[in-house]
Amino acid sequence: MNTSVAFIGLGAMGYRMAAHLPKQFDTVYVWNRNFDKAKQHATEYKTQAVELQQAVQADIIFSCLPTSQDVEDLIQTLEIKSGAIWVDCTSGVPESARKLSQQLAEKNVKFLDAPVSGQTIGAENATLTFMVGGEKSAFDQAFATMQVMGKLIKHVGDSGAGFAVKAVNNMMMAVHLCAAAEGFTTLKAHGVNLNEALDCINASSGKSGVTEAVLPQRVFNRSFPLTFALPLLAKDTGIAVDLIREAKLSAPVIGLTQSLIQTANNLAEPNSDFSTAIKMYELWNKITLD
Amino acid sequence: MNTSVAFIGLGAMGYRMAAHLPKQFDTVYVWNRNFDKAKQHATEYKTQAVELQQAVQADIIFSCLPTSQDVEDLIQTLEIKSGAIWVDCTSGVPESARKLSQQLAEKNVKFLDAPVSGQTIGAENATLTFMVGGEKSAFDQAFATMQVMGKLIKHVGDSGAGFAVKAVNNMMMAVHLCAAAEGFTTLKAHGVNLNEALDCINASSGKSGVTEAVLPQRVFNRSFPLTFALPLLAKDTGIAVDLIREAKLSAPVIGLTQSLIQTANNLAEPNSDFSTAIKMYELWNKITLD
Amino acid sequence: MNTSVAFIGLGAMGYRMAAHLPKQFDTVYVWNRNFDKAKQHATEYKTQAVELQQAVQADIIFSCLPTSQDVEDLIQTLEIKSGAIWVDCTSGVPESARKLSQQLAEKNVKFLDAPVSGQTIGAENATLTFMVGGEKSAFDQAFATMQVMGKLIKHVGDSGAGFAVKAVNNMMMAVHLCAAAEGFTTLKAHGVNLNEALDCINASSGKSGVTEAVLPQRVFNRSFPLTFALPLLAKDTGIAVDLIREAKLSAPVIGLTQSLIQTANNLAEPNSDFSTAIKMYELWNKITLD
Amino acid sequence: MNTSVAFIGLGAMGYRMAAHLPKQFDTVYVWNRNFDKAKQHATEYKTQAVELQQAVQADIIFSCLPTSQDVEDLIQTLEIKSGAIWVDCTSGVPESARKLSQQLAEKNVKFLDAPVSGQTIGAENATLTFMVGGEKSAFDQAFATMQVMGKLIKHVGDSGAGFAVKAVNNMMMAVHLCAAAEGFTTLKAHGVNLNEALDCINASSGKSGVTEAVLPQRVFNRSFPLTFALPLLAKDTGIAVDLIREAKLSAPVIGLTQSLIQTANNLAEPNSDFSTAIKMYELWNKITLD
Repeated sequence: MNTSVAFIGLGAMGYRMAAHLPKQFDTVYVWNRNFDKAKQHATEYKTQAVELQQAVQADIIFSCLPTSQDVEDLIQTLEIKSGAIWVDCTSGVPESARKLSQQLAEKNVKFLDAPVSGQTIGAENATLTFMVGGEKSAFDQAFATMQVMGKLIKHVGDSGAGFAVKAVNNMMMAVHLCAAAEGFTTLKAHGVNLNEALDCINASSGKSGVTEAVLPQRVFNRSFPLTFALPLLAKDTGIAVDLIREAKLSAPVIGLTQSLIQTANNLAEPNSDFSTAIKMYELWNKITLD
Repeated sequence: MNTSVAFIGLGAMGYRMAAHLPKQFDTVYVWNRNFDKAKQHATEYKTQAVELQQAVQADIIFSCLPTSQDVEDLIQTLEIKSGAIWVDCTSGVPESARKLSQQLAEKNVKFLDAPVSGQTIGAENATLTFMVGGEKSAFDQAFATMQVMGKLIKHVGDSGAGFAVKAVNNMMMAVHLCAAAEGFTTLKAHGVNLNEALDCINASSGKSGVTEAVLPQRVFNRSFPLTFALPLLAKDTGIAVDLIREAKLSAPVIGLTQSLIQTANNLAEPNSDFSTAIKMYELWNKITLD
Repeated sequence: MNTSVAFIGLGAMGYRMAAHLPKQFDTVYVWNRNFDKAKQHATEYKTQAVELQQAVQADIIFSCLPTSQDVEDLIQTLEIKSGAIWVDCTSGVPESARKLSQQLAEKNVKFLDAPVSGQTIGAENATLTFMVGGEKSAFDQAFATMQVMGKLIKHVGDSGAGFAVKAVNNMMMAVHLCAAAEGFTTLKAHGVNLNEALDCINASSGKSGVTEAVLPQRVFNRSFPLTFALPLLAKDTGIAVDLIREAKLSAPVIGLTQSLIQTANNLAEPNSDFSTAIKMYELWNKITLD
Repeated sequence: MNTSVAFIGLGAMGYRMAAHLPKQFDTVYVWNRNFDKAKQHATEYKTQAVELQQAVQADIIFSCLPTSQDVEDLIQTLEIKSGAIWVDCTSGVPESARKLSQQLAEKNVKFLDAPVSGQTIGAENATLTFMVGGEKSAFDQAFATMQVMGKLIKHVGDSGAGFAVKAVNNMMMAVHLCAAAEGFTTLKAHGVNLNEALDCINASSGKSGVTEAVLPQRVFNRSFPLTFALPLLAKDTGIAVDLIREAKLSAPVIGLTQSLIQTANNLAEPNSDFSTAIKMYELWNKITLD
């Protein structure tokens, strides 16, 4: 297609995501703060490693950075092409999306908050889920580019709605993680065979993404591979509770879980996977989930 | 097969479960307090409606009653056949399982705590999950009878372990229910499209049995069909917290959730499905999840 | 004394506080949005009801408004006398204090966040506690004016520290309120005589400001007099949890209590005293604390 | 007076309590498992160190042991004088009180659950609070003996009510302890002067027994003297949540606090004072309350 596309931020997710774009689009710019990574990407996937200022002349500009603050800082410095659509895949802050959306609108640029789920394996296999907030017309225009990298591409509401869904998704996952830690600790304390119990629960009403994937693949085998850092989960749960505070809602289980994830993060070693939050419970109860 | 089987307690679950037994076993006794139901079952499925005292002369005796207390009360009155195995499918109390196990052992009867999951649809289709505690040899002997009614039949540990797994499964489901209520309330308050958000979350790490089944089939369509009563969920979460107390564990999220389910149950109308616990959150936040 | 003093905001607290100033100061300006109240105050206490612009020519300017936002809105419109000290007795937001402190510093005006405790009775008897944040030198200069209205006048830290102490005080009170509601509900459910139990607890380690004053004076006698509105307590607990979020702390009991106060406030009738939060528990447990 | 009195269990509390009895009563038996302590008491306070079987021939028999289980075990072995009143000052379990009350009634012995508060200093100065459950007539008969050792002697209800009040008192204190830990951690994180803040809060609505006594005397000075062991507080909070479970109440803040105290106890070094629960928060937040 003739649409030109750019991808800014070639981290563990971005690097893999951008790799799919040349399959459908002729002009694919990539940029990364550590520019060697951009050059490596260009070599490996036939993208073009360009200066940031050139990248933002693309029709559709993707970004995937650690936090909304990083995106804000970057955008302040740029002269983005009029008529472009900026698709931000960061797990960001809804309020920031609304602010950037307004700022960019003055320059005739549309902003979509479009966080993804599916982790690096989903990025690699182009099976990501995109949860997108912003103007429906901009969503429609950017749809084809997202579809190259994802499987389920959903417009979930106005500006900020995408970030809100991602934050709530991760917050719910955090609750499920605590429930699993507490539930299986209880079973172990009472002499139950954890693997058999897990099979039963995964065939029953108590299952979750955590019992289906996190417990068997990360916890019971004691691997805790670093694919989603605990500080990032702590950040996302914080975004969720800020949404609750803003709307003056009552959400006690989420509130408590955020405290616990914050505690686990305060106690954790650097570069810990989110799943190591379970180790906090293990310490508290002197029970290891293996 | 020559093994004789009995089924005591023909409620919504038991009636459907016992219906499969004649497919494999020649002698199937059924008994129910309201005996008309037993006679109807005999007519419908070619089982034999018999006096309770005759039922407990079977080789394998199933029970499926509301609570462990009901099972205890019943068993005190009976002369069970020596060598029989009693398979109790009630969602019961681990401590009661251990007590009955010891009492029956004196009469040369084995007791298995074998609660099931899968609801009435699973009972109808013989796709239930059996989570079984007790002696492994008794489990092996009873295996074939359970297999006629279920799909996944697991020995999870010593006496009481089956009840513990069921209580923890239901407890975890209750946590997931609260997480879903709080999470989707937050999204609705921020103007997010709930159906699209649910699709995203069900494709992401935040999914659970609740987001996959309860929200779309019971809540968003406002049907709240009574298939698993809220007081029974309250009972099961109580069993889980008692297990936590006994072992002096730290399980704050489960503890809080039990309080909330207790609150919802205190406030609910009679004959409310467990999913109506979400209405408590709707009341608190003046937001309806539809 | 020659120091001129102004008091802006003659609500239930401010009206009584300003009444003490003429005892020590010759020039006392008062202003209120509903100006009739200012004129009434002037008549009653020999203060001077003046235009707002004149009031802010005083040496020491007190304000006592519902929220920090009200104070910010007011201050934006004013030309305050250079060298003045603004003493804000609102139960406000620490971040707002720091912002106003910086803004006013540019105009050579010092800002002190100086919330008070002691309720209307303390305002009337000049026995209030002032917890003050901001520059120590400004605190020293304003000390004499605060001392006319209060008994304990403390400098607790830099700008914002006063508001932080007030928010945390009210948050702790909210926790104690929930503890008392839950504890006495438990005792009532078990047939204990609540008045005798209260006497025992007030002589023991479990006492609090709530058991000493709120339970006997507001709850057990079912009077729930409106002296501190529930929405204001909800606001203050929100300020406290925002402080916790900012500093990335783990504070689970405070977090949960904020959820519960938010719930009580969402459910309460308009113009409810903070003590009516206990009625939420009464509803949940079908037990009345009388 | 002619009434004969016995005191069983001369621990830190009992030793000091029994010391007052000879001031009013001629015959005072004492007994202790480690009998040397009884003999020392007899020498020091002119009591009579006697065999256990003789001690329980007294008109009024006090006991003060670590747990209700200890009292039950002891009582099973004894032939208590018909007509005697047994006054148990243990911090015990209400259900156990009711059981013992019934058992002893068959032997014409009355049982009062009469836990005390006031710690060792209150025992030494005879200023303890007695919160007493059981028959009013037995309470009246035993009143004079309790009055020798205490200042506030209250009949709070039927058998078990005394233990219930004590458990709830200690549970509320535990909530206040968590509130104080969380609140002051928040203040410290924001640079507030803790001593000045404590003065303000102790003059305000947020005060509690913990802010008035525990923070200044045990925490801020880092002394944490062992006067009430953390495992005993954990036991008492467990009794409180059992009361809540029995009555099917909703008490989320107490439930969460019990989890936290359980956690602190699981993590604590042996022989830790209850106030060291605050160290758990210090670890979690990397903030020391000094």
